[in-house]
Amino acid sequence: MNISIVKIGGNVIDNPEKLEDFLLLFARLEGKKILVHGGGVMASKIGESMGIQANMVDGRRITDEPTLDIVTMVYAGLINKKIVAKLQRLEQNAMGFTGADGNLIRSAKRPVAKIDYGFVGDVKEIDTELLEGIISQGIIPVFSPITHDRKGNLLNTNADTIASELATSLAHKHTVKLYFCFNKAGVLIDENNEDSLVPKINEDIYDELKRDNVIHSGMIPKLDNAFSALQRGVSNVWIGKAENLILASKGMKSGTNIERHRYDLY
Amino acid sequence: MNISIVKIGGNVIDNPEKLEDFLLLFARLEGKKILVHGGGVMASKIGESMGIQANMVDGRRITDEPTLDIVTMVYAGLINKKIVAKLQRLEQNAMGFTGADGNLIRSAKRPVAKIDYGFVGDVKEIDTELLEGIISQGIIPVFSPITHDRKGNLLNTNADTIASELATSLAHKHTVKLYFCFNKAGVLIDENNEDSLVPKINEDIYDELKRDNVIHSGMIPKLDNAFSALQRGVSNVWIGKAENLILASKGMKSGTNIERHRYDLY
Repeated sequence: MNISIVKIGGNVIDNPEKLEDFLLLFARLEGKKILVHGGGVMASKIGESMGIQANMVDGRRITDEPTLDIVTMVYAGLINKKIVAKLQRLEQNAMGFTGADGNLIRSAKRPVAKIDYGFVGDVKEIDTELLEGIISQGIIPVFSPITHDRKGNLLNTNADTIASELATSLAHKHTVKLYFCFNKAGVLIDENNEDSLVPKINEDIYDELKRDNVIHSGMIPKLDNAFSALQRGVSNVWIGKAENLILASKGMKSGTNIERHRYDLY
Repeated sequence: MNISIVKIGGNVIDNPEKLEDFLLLFARLEGKKILVHGGGVMASKIGESMGIQANMVDGRRITDEPTLDIVTMVYAGLINKKIVAKLQRLEQNAMGFTGADGNLIRSAKRPVAKIDYGFVGDVKEIDTELLEGIISQGIIPVFSPITHDRKGNLLNTNADTIASELATSLAHKHTVKLYFCFNKAGVLIDENNEDSLVPKINEDIYDELKRDNVIHSGMIPKLDNAFSALQRGVSNVWIGKAENLILASKGMKSGTNIERHRYDLY
């Protein structure tokens, strides 16, 4: 099978109009597909309305027990089911999942090192066969970034990582393309100038741009996930704006393509 | 297939110890099975902590837009995924659903009559084939009481009704037993005395007990659902305490069996 895995982040989810526009594009995407969503901003807002402040360290959420309840409610409940209902209206037979459902994604609680991230899970195992069966029936899985440890605990897991791990697990038998949609046009040399878009990036360039501090903070785990997926058999990885998803799927110029081989930057 | 459909209500869900005990029993239930859960009290509590009061008319929740968001979060997110994770620990391959997922349960927004119930859905259609496929793979569906209209809207739907409708849809081809677990021992002549349990009830007795106001308020829709399921092909309907589920499944004396045929009450 040819399978497209699309990840959308908070900037699309938090804006109802952007979400509608994105879902129309996603519905037009041809072939088998999976959607993975995040949703951080909305979780923080709802937590605050309940008197629970988001606890962030180095841009990462610390998931204590009340926070785990909030992200479970918001990601797996509110956001996931709204997306599923909207896709159903577009005659897309979407079905929402966490990693706990059908034991699709088992993770392990991250060991406490310098920082105790709390109830955060690192992906350990994916039931690829069950997932293939679901996709081959014409169902479109919609994953929220919640997994479980199979010991009864839900765990908060980075949505980029989930997208990358699902892509990798399916790449053993299928041709998989991975699309990370976010709020920028792609990898930018100057983050305030879309004309500075890097249309293609490989690991050599990535290392260089990290060294020069052009690529930093939240972009690093995103690109690490992208390269990790490529190294483990995913055919194509793309990063760019949600509105360019269809262009990207047709191989037309937009966003940043992440590639394994060396070439010149300009 | 022989399929058991078990409905649990708020008194089990709101109490972590009772929920653990119930899930152990549910795990022991033999054969194919489906769990349907409610969760009203927790939704009200979380709504209140966000400054949104539950709006009840005649014991029924009015589902305005903020309330729909809360029940979606709490039912489909928090409660559903916690139950799924706990069943997974018990090596039960549970998978959580709303009616929107895979378009499993399509409903229609209840027309406004004397009361405007808001975003409340009456069940219209079940994708029995998809549900059979899921069950026959050894997966245990766990339904939260949220459905959708296939026009992009989620709708709040009574959990007893969902259990009864799922049972009916499967009864065309399968032998289906329906268990309503609630906070009483069954149908009681004196609601404060468990010795006054009615071990069997049919429609004639039901009419009589309603006329005498022995059966009233919340018990009426519950029994209406039960009789409706029996009339539409469900083999057995039982109502009683969650802790008696295994006794009931083995045909041992406990709770109230709902039957179609006439017999003497004593």
